[in-house]
Order: sequence, then structure tokens, then C-alpha cells
Amino acid sequence: MKILLKNARILSMEDSDIVFGDILIENNRIKKISEKPLKEKVNIIRDCHGNLLMPGFKNAHAHSAMTFLRSKSDGLKLHDWLFDVVFPREKELKEEDVYHFAKVAYLEYIRNGITACFDQYYFPHMSAKAAEEMGMRVVLLGTYNGSYEKVLSTYHYFNDKKDSLITYCLGVHAEYTTGDIELEMMKKAVKELKAPFYAHISETKDEVDNCYKARGCSPVKFFADAGLFDYGGGGYHCIYFNEEDIKIFKDKKLNAVSCPGSNTKLSSGIPPITDYLEAGINVALGTDGPASNNCLDMFKEMALTFSLQNLRTKNPNCLASFDILKMATCNAARAMGLNECDVLKENKLADIIEIDLSSPNMQPLNDIITNIVYSGNPSNISMTMINGKILFDKGEFFLDESIDDIFNNCQKATDELEKRYLSHLHDQTV
Amino acid sequence: MKILLKNARILSMEDSDIVFGDILIENNRIKKISEKPLKEKVNIIRDCHGNLLMPGFKNAHAHSAMTFLRSKSDGLKLHDWLFDVVFPREKELKEEDVYHFAKVAYLEYIRNGITACFDQYYFPHMSAKAAEEMGMRVVLLGTYNGSYEKVLSTYHYFNDKKDSLITYCLGVHAEYTTGDIELEMMKKAVKELKAPFYAHISETKDEVDNCYKARGCSPVKFFADAGLFDYGGGGYHCIYFNEEDIKIFKDKKLNAVSCPGSNTKLSSGIPPITDYLEAGINVALGTDGPASNNCLDMFKEMALTFSLQNLRTKNPNCLASFDILKMATCNAARAMGLNECDVLKENKLADIIEIDLSSPNMQPLNDIITNIVYSGNPSNISMTMINGKILFDKGEFFLDESIDDIFNNCQKATDELEKRYLSHLHDQTV
Repeated sequence: MKILLKNARILSMEDSDIVFGDILIENNRIKKISEKPLKEKVNIIRDCHGNLLMPGFKNAHAHSAMTFLRSKSDGLKLHDWLFDVVFPREKELKEEDVYHFAKVAYLEYIRNGITACFDQYYFPHMSAKAAEEMGMRVVLLGTYNGSYEKVLSTYHYFNDKKDSLITYCLGVHAEYTTGDIELEMMKKAVKELKAPFYAHISETKDEVDNCYKARGCSPVKFFADAGLFDYGGGGYHCIYFNEEDIKIFKDKKLNAVSCPGSNTKLSSGIPPITDYLEAGINVALGTDGPASNNCLDMFKEMALTFSLQNLRTKNPNCLASFDILKMATCNAARAMGLNECDVLKENKLADIIEIDLSSPNMQPLNDIITNIVYSGNPSNISMTMINGKILFDKGEFFLDESIDDIFNNCQKATDELEKRYLSHLHDQTV
Repeated sequence: MKILLKNARILSMEDSDIVFGDILIENNRIKKISEKPLKEKVNIIRDCHGNLLMPGFKNAHAHSAMTFLRSKSDGLKLHDWLFDVVFPREKELKEEDVYHFAKVAYLEYIRNGITACFDQYYFPHMSAKAAEEMGMRVVLLGTYNGSYEKVLSTYHYFNDKKDSLITYCLGVHAEYTTGDIELEMMKKAVKELKAPFYAHISETKDEVDNCYKARGCSPVKFFADAGLFDYGGGGYHCIYFNEEDIKIFKDKKLNAVSCPGSNTKLSSGIPPITDYLEAGINVALGTDGPASNNCLDMFKEMALTFSLQNLRTKNPNCLASFDILKMATCNAARAMGLNECDVLKENKLADIIEIDLSSPNMQPLNDIITNIVYSGNPSNISMTMINGKILFDKGEFFLDESIDDIFNNCQKATDELEKRYLSHLHDQTV
């Protein structure tokens, strides 16, 4: 299958240059990028009418299937929200639920130009099934699931396939929810697989304070001393880092994934992003789950990033637009181990989005990159291609199933889970 | 002309209830809202398929025609940006430029479900001309333009017409840019017309500090003591209020218009919105101009409002979703004197938008209002009606002119203005 994307502005993200030209896709890869019109015989020609092609956004931290908790019991701090709202309902989760809930999130990604996500949730094989059916690229973060052998076999099951949409990384939820058995198992797996390791780290001040009380050090140092970062990886949130934490992240080339949408919703705090960049740490952006954000929209994360850093540093020039766009695209790809779909280049995977520059918020064209970062929103996404397939084009989805079915299945599973939760709550209180 | 909007969820914004039913529009007003299907003979029937109808967003503070400066010289603090980038270029503005620049902004409003804006800029009659041609509702904030008689005649010219899309209020830019002649003239006009008065107030700490140095009081007290608030009105930005300022706003029933998009971009600060609400002050939201935001998107302003207040108060429950939605709709209408298009109700003006609930970010339907405030973005706007006319429907504009012409005229005028600016800069430096 060959697709020719013609007459486009092209932002490769290798640098901030924008060129005019054509992109030829063969199967799932970029075959050619040319500033001269290409005349190949292809299956599909799509005229981009001068709109901008760029690498798809990458969501470097999510719990996608948490769509069922969107707009549910908002207004709590992280700890209360997790222990009073989320965990008791998650006890009621069935495997099939995750499949239906993840599909709504993947639809939102495709709609919003997000071509890959780093997804940590229960029943990861059900998220994988949903993603494969829809054509979504997902990096699963596998957590403890019973035994060391199971972790190893799952790791190999997902990572040994060639050209799969799904890859699998090692990790835990967080220091404060990880027991000794899980920890020892992870240490062994990281060593055996020489694999990077990821976790929620320093999301709240309480988390860090409690870690000092319990372990005598910060969560970053705790994981590092345990050898879990010996093959790289990173942390989600990374708000309350001290100088030693920054040095560890720098020395071990770890990735700091910032989720400002979640951090503001839950009043968690503002990370010192500009300090991380100054130290040379790779900073990526993520949405976190739809229950704690509540949308899956990298434009929002970019806008919050400059908004919060401008306020924190009292310097409206503390971050360049292009550096923010990198956090949402190639930096995020790097954090997720997706080195084949970070930039637009020949032989890279064809994960490409189109920004509609003929939207009023993109006019006039004084500076296209700043327009995207400061003015953009999902209505500007006019095409989403993942792995060489156009899944969304000018407002329409091109999937094998109807979006109404996806919504109905999600709503039904959401309502039934809530019923189970309420009935068990009733049992406990009677 | 009669239009029937059928099978809709309806959020009137009088309260947070959502009912299912039909809305009948006759000419520019809402004729009937019914929970039973309406069977009137009408010119147009539009099936809403269960999507949500609500009052259009109102942008309570803007300098719409500043589209020409979008993404231009970002990264400066308010003072430097105004005096080094904005003012020297604005010297080159021609009347016709404002007409072309405003049209791009009004197109963005219509696209984003914003049915009215409070617009302060040079050559307000050119903004009015653009708005009338496009069907946009605009409240002009007239500033000093030569003489007391001119202010009075302009005020009557715009406000004495019946059923006009354009109204006109009195105001100045800010305390620190208002000379004695303008001030005396405004005092006289406010008294004569018994009219509310508006200005940028307490946008930066420096502004407040300098006002104390120059006048021995805060900007709020300065304007209040001058009698300018004797017939109401309000302030734009309102970040650095002291207790006395809050009391003045409360006692005089003034409107505080918050513009968090601009305030974060320019590192200006976070206003104590929750304190204003507690004092009973009407709080509205605005985007400010496209040069200092850079988009005209009330979803972004709502998201920044809860984000910043959650961080400021360290309380993720400090603002209810419905209260935030009010700031972007009925509270803003009140601040702008638009008492006829604040809520959906029989005999009110038909300024109505549709939120597409069949978007992935609106699913599942756990809480529609929270979904809009926490997850919404302009891609969810599926219809915009102003004054009984459908101007945008399912991705398409219904205007008397082509949007390409609007963009081309704006780009041409932008490029020519920049050339004039550079050539004068060259003259001065030679």
C-alpha cells in the first residue's frame, strides 16, 4: 500500500524548519520526503493544500481505560481520590471492561492527533487488544501480575513480535504502593532483561515526605539505589525533585514525564521544568488518565506547560515554543522507547498528523510553531495517520467498527460497574 | 424566519438542570422551549440528535483586531511587550486594517462557540462594520477619541438603535495610560450618560505599586474616588486586589473579568477568584487579545481558571464546574450588559451553541457539565447561532463571504503593516 501526501508544509521535528513538499508512505513507513513534487504510482493521493504535516503527538503517561471515571467525583486531592473513589471501583473491574473503556480513550487520541500512548493499567492485554483492533500504537507499562515468570513471558510476548503496534516496559505504580515482593521481583526482572524502569515519582509533597520517613530518602534515590534505573527509564509527574534527584535523572539519562493537566486538577503542584531542561534531562508531556485531567489533549498539556512555567519563573520567555512542541512529540517518543516514530524522516514509521492551517486560530501565519503551541486545539487536527494508516480525516474516523458501538459499550460497562460498586458498598454497610 | 432545534439536551444556565426537548426560534429570539416535541410549521428543522444546546460563550474582554500580532514577539513581560512591540506597530494601523484583522477574530469566535465579545480597540466603528457583516454580537468599549461631544454622539449612535448587534460602553485603557484630559472627559461622560465604566485594572504588581507612588492609592480606589464607578462597570484582569479593592467591587456591584490565558502568557499572576466569589462579586472570563493569549477559546480560559485556582488554594474542590461555566456564559453576559442573551429562556435573544456529545472526550456521560468544563475544547462546538442565525454548523461556516478572502485580506494587511513599521524604524535609525 502506497499513500502520497502532496502539497504540504512539512515540520520534521528534527529541527524547527518547515519545508514545502510531498511525503510518500509505503506500507507502515515513510519512503520518501521530497521538496519536489513526487510522481510515483500510488494507491491513495491526498492533497494537503498547504496544511502542516508533523509527527503525531505522543502521550508519555496515561491510564487510558480510566474513561469510566471521567467527571466522576471531581474535587478531591490525590490521596483521597485514589483511596475513596478510584481503588474501590477498580476492584469491580472485569477484563472486558478495560477493553471497552480503553477504546473510548484511543478514539480520543486518534481524534486529537495523538499517535501513541504510554499506558499503565490493569489487564494490559485487554488494552493491547483494543489498540490492535483500532490501529493505535501503545507502549504498555506492565505492573506486577503474579509472578516473575509471568512478567518475563509477558515482556517477551509483546516485545519479540516484529512491527507490532504494542510494546511493553517494566514498572510499578509508585514507591508508596509497592510491596517488598513486587519490588524484589522488579529488581530481578530489570537486571535480567536489562530493561528501563518507570514509576509515578514525586507527584505530591506528602509522597516525598512519607518516603523520607519510611525509607530515609527520596523516591528517586530509593528506586536508583535499588538498581531499578540501571538501564534507564524515568518517572511520571516529577514535581518535588531535590538537587540530588535532578543529578540522578541527569546521570542515568532518565526521562521526566510532566502531566500538568492532572497536577493542576488534583492541586499537586508545579514541577521545575526549566531546571530539568537546564540539567539536560529529557522532558516529555503526558495527560495522565482521563479520570484525573479529564481530557486526552496534548495541546492542553503544552498550554499548561508554558502557562505554569511562566508563572513559576516570572519569566514569559522561559520556554521556547519549539522546545514545548518537542516535549509533546519527539521527547515523548524518546521517553517511551519509540525511536522509530519520533521525527518525520525516510524509513521512520509513518505516524503523521496534519494541522489545518486554514482554521481562524492559526491565522495569520506569523509563526506556525508558536501558533500551534499557543493557539492550537484539537479542532486543528485534520488528519491522523498511525503506522501508515489514515484513521481520522477531516472530522471522520476510518475504523473497522462504528464509534456509536464504542460509546454504547463504554456507557453500558460504566453503568454496570457502578451498580456492582454500589451493591458491594451496600453489602458492607448493612 | 422560524427555526426548530429538535431532540436536544438543553442547559438553560438558569440552573444546572439539563432537560430534553425542542427550542423554537422566531427571527432573532427564542419563542418556545418545550420538553414535549414541538410541531410548529417552520422554515428550518435541525435535529440535534441528543446533543447539548446552551447559551453561547461570552468573551468579556478582548482586543479582537490584534490578530495581526498573534505569535509575534512572544516572550516579553507586559510592559516591554506593550511599549516595544505593540504600541510602535499600532501607530501604523489604518482604519481598514482593523476591519480585516477583526474579521479573523470574529471567525474564531464563531468557530469556538463564542457568541459575543467585549471589544476594546482603535477605530471601533471598523470592528462594528466587520461584526455586522458577519453577524457577530459585539459590545464595544470606546476609548477617548478626540472630544466629549464625539464620545457622547458615538455612545448614542450605537446604543439608540433597536435590536442592533453592536452596543457601546464607556472606558479607558488603564490608569497608567490615561491622561488628565481623557480622565476629566470620562468623568463628565459617565455622569451625563449614567453609564458603567470599564478599564484594565491591577493587571501587574508594578501597575499597582506605581499607582500608589503616583496617586497614593490603588487603581480601583483611584477610579472609584473619581466617581467613574458610580453607575457600575468593572475591571479587566483584577489580579492584585487588596481588601479595600474587593470591598469597592462588592459595594458598587462591579464586574471582575479574569483573563488567565493572557495573565499566564505574560507572567502577570493569578487573581484570587475564590475570594471574589466569596465576596459576591460577579466574575466573568475573557481571552484578552489574540496577541497576548494567543487564542480566543473560552474552554482554555475555563481550564486555566480551575487549574490556577486549584494550585493557588491547594484545594481541588475550590470551584464547582457549574460556577466556572457561568463565568464563561451568563456571568460574562452580565458583565457586558447583555442581559437579553445570558440564558436560554423564552423571549431571550437566540445566541445558542451546540456541544457535540458524541465526541470521545465527552464520553461517557457521567456528568455533562463537568465534561464540558474539564474535557471540552473547540472541536466540541457543532453549531453556533447568533441572533437567530446559524453561522457555523458541523464544521462549516455560513457567512456571506468566503473565509479564504478573510484570511488573505488579513495576511496582506499584516504583511503591509509590518513593512510600514520596519521602514519607519529604518528612517528613525538612519
